[in-house]
Amino acid sequence: MRIANVNGRAHLLSGPGAIDIARASGGRFGPDPMDLFAHWDAFRTWAHTDGVHSSAPYRREDLGAPVPRPGQVFAIGLNYAEHAAETGLEAGPGMPSVFTKFTSSLTGPTGTVQLTGPSVDWEVELVVAIGKEAYDVAAADVWEHVAGVMVGQDFSDRDVQMSGTPPQFSLGKSYPGFGPTGPALVSLDEIAPDIPLRLRCWVNDELVQDGSTDQMIMPVPVLIERISSVCTLYPGDLVFTGTPAGVGMGRTPARYLAPGDEVRTSIDGIGEMAHILR
Amino acid sequence: MRIANVNGRAHLLSGPGAIDIARASGGRFGPDPMDLFAHWDAFRTWAHTDGVHSSAPYRREDLGAPVPRPGQVFAIGLNYAEHAAETGLEAGPGMPSVFTKFTSSLTGPTGTVQLTGPSVDWEVELVVAIGKEAYDVAAADVWEHVAGVMVGQDFSDRDVQMSGTPPQFSLGKSYPGFGPTGPALVSLDEIAPDIPLRLRCWVNDELVQDGSTDQMIMPVPVLIERISSVCTLYPGDLVFTGTPAGVGMGRTPARYLAPGDEVRTSIDGIGEMAHILR
Repeated sequence: MRIANVNGRAHLLSGPGAIDIARASGGRFGPDPMDLFAHWDAFRTWAHTDGVHSSAPYRREDLGAPVPRPGQVFAIGLNYAEHAAETGLEAGPGMPSVFTKFTSSLTGPTGTVQLTGPSVDWEVELVVAIGKEAYDVAAADVWEHVAGVMVGQDFSDRDVQMSGTPPQFSLGKSYPGFGPTGPALVSLDEIAPDIPLRLRCWVNDELVQDGSTDQMIMPVPVLIERISSVCTLYPGDLVFTGTPAGVGMGRTPARYLAPGDEVRTSIDGIGEMAHILR
Repeated sequence: MRIANVNGRAHLLSGPGAIDIARASGGRFGPDPMDLFAHWDAFRTWAHTDGVHSSAPYRREDLGAPVPRPGQVFAIGLNYAEHAAETGLEAGPGMPSVFTKFTSSLTGPTGTVQLTGPSVDWEVELVVAIGKEAYDVAAADVWEHVAGVMVGQDFSDRDVQMSGTPPQFSLGKSYPGFGPTGPALVSLDEIAPDIPLRLRCWVNDELVQDGSTDQMIMPVPVLIERISSVCTLYPGDLVFTGTPAGVGMGRTPARYLAPGDEVRTSIDGIGEMAHILR
């Protein structure tokens, strides 16, 4: 199934339309998208058995973040070797490099994003949403704890990110609108886990990133195994899993976003997002 | 007023006892401590006018984190000059160094904390809880957005924190129990903002940290002004404001916590916490 946030209400996408989950379930689930994660197993069972209802058209510009208020956002740096090389940075041994995108930065799959300076960069990422509490979970069991996946964009103000000794990742990546996700949360019955997914990012129709999730240094099951050896992940938490090579700071000279630029962010089989910088 | 979490229910401390807020307010506020932040102004008015009810004794070991599930936790590194010097690190100009303590690490003011290795260190910190949404707030107006303050302890696994290029602060500071707060949330009518507060930490009755909030490089109003220039802070969010000098990693040789050690963490006028490492 594909779960979208249409004007703040959880919907199941169905062909070209969307089913309002709260109305279709008689108020049992939703309308708040976060409510689904409080009852994820029951909701999934309902959606698979009783979720077929009449759908209505929706407008793409009415889509919000499918998971708008996660309790925790784990964001991974330096998880693709070529990207780590282009930045000159490297994760330590055994543990991923983890920062956060503060939740006030999250937004949906369309709209405008305000530039914060001359060094705002793009990063296409696979985003994983947790469906079942996870602490100290083995990699082989990780997918049982995952609700689904989304396209993510990790906009980054490099001047803020790289300032200080050591640099700080979280703040420069948490300006308003710097965490787009969407267009829908795609559950694992629609997209087989562990299949390589092609990630791409375009700036004004120029392809700037073109990678695959099979290039991850730590694939999703290992990432979540390691994070869960430290933290408890709760239903509705998100994991931004890192970006492949091709960001602006890795170019000579560095290239950043300018007012009017359109950034398109896509993962094959999941969907595409588009944002205008201003 | 002083708000405590007794066995998961919000209480007002009153002399040696505690008033159950949900019972005293006829269900208007609480019992979940996070519910107070959804109605902070109304709750504060009620507490000041109708909050006097019969109290009951409570046990110190029943105290939990006064703000158990903040939406966002902003944690500040390198905000005291002597501490920055002892670590050899430095925040960049203009912006604080911000990481997060993931909320699964939060715990209350007593109990045991599991050591995660040979490099677990102590850090006494003033913790600020937000009462009113804050975006782009001037320093002079910051205190109007603050619900109150608590004692915090920022336990840190230095091996995990310092691994990688650059080091990562969030993960090594987010093991279970690594974020004690308490003993109560003290509102600003009990403790005047901007008055210097003495922060101390003891390991087995040896005083290891003895600082004052007037040594902060960025005082609380400036910290929150700068964070709010990037992120929206919501009611119930926390800010760990950094630690003064005297941590174990700054000693020659470095000194870390061992099983059986007792760490006491105090701020004059706010209270004291005590934890046993195991």
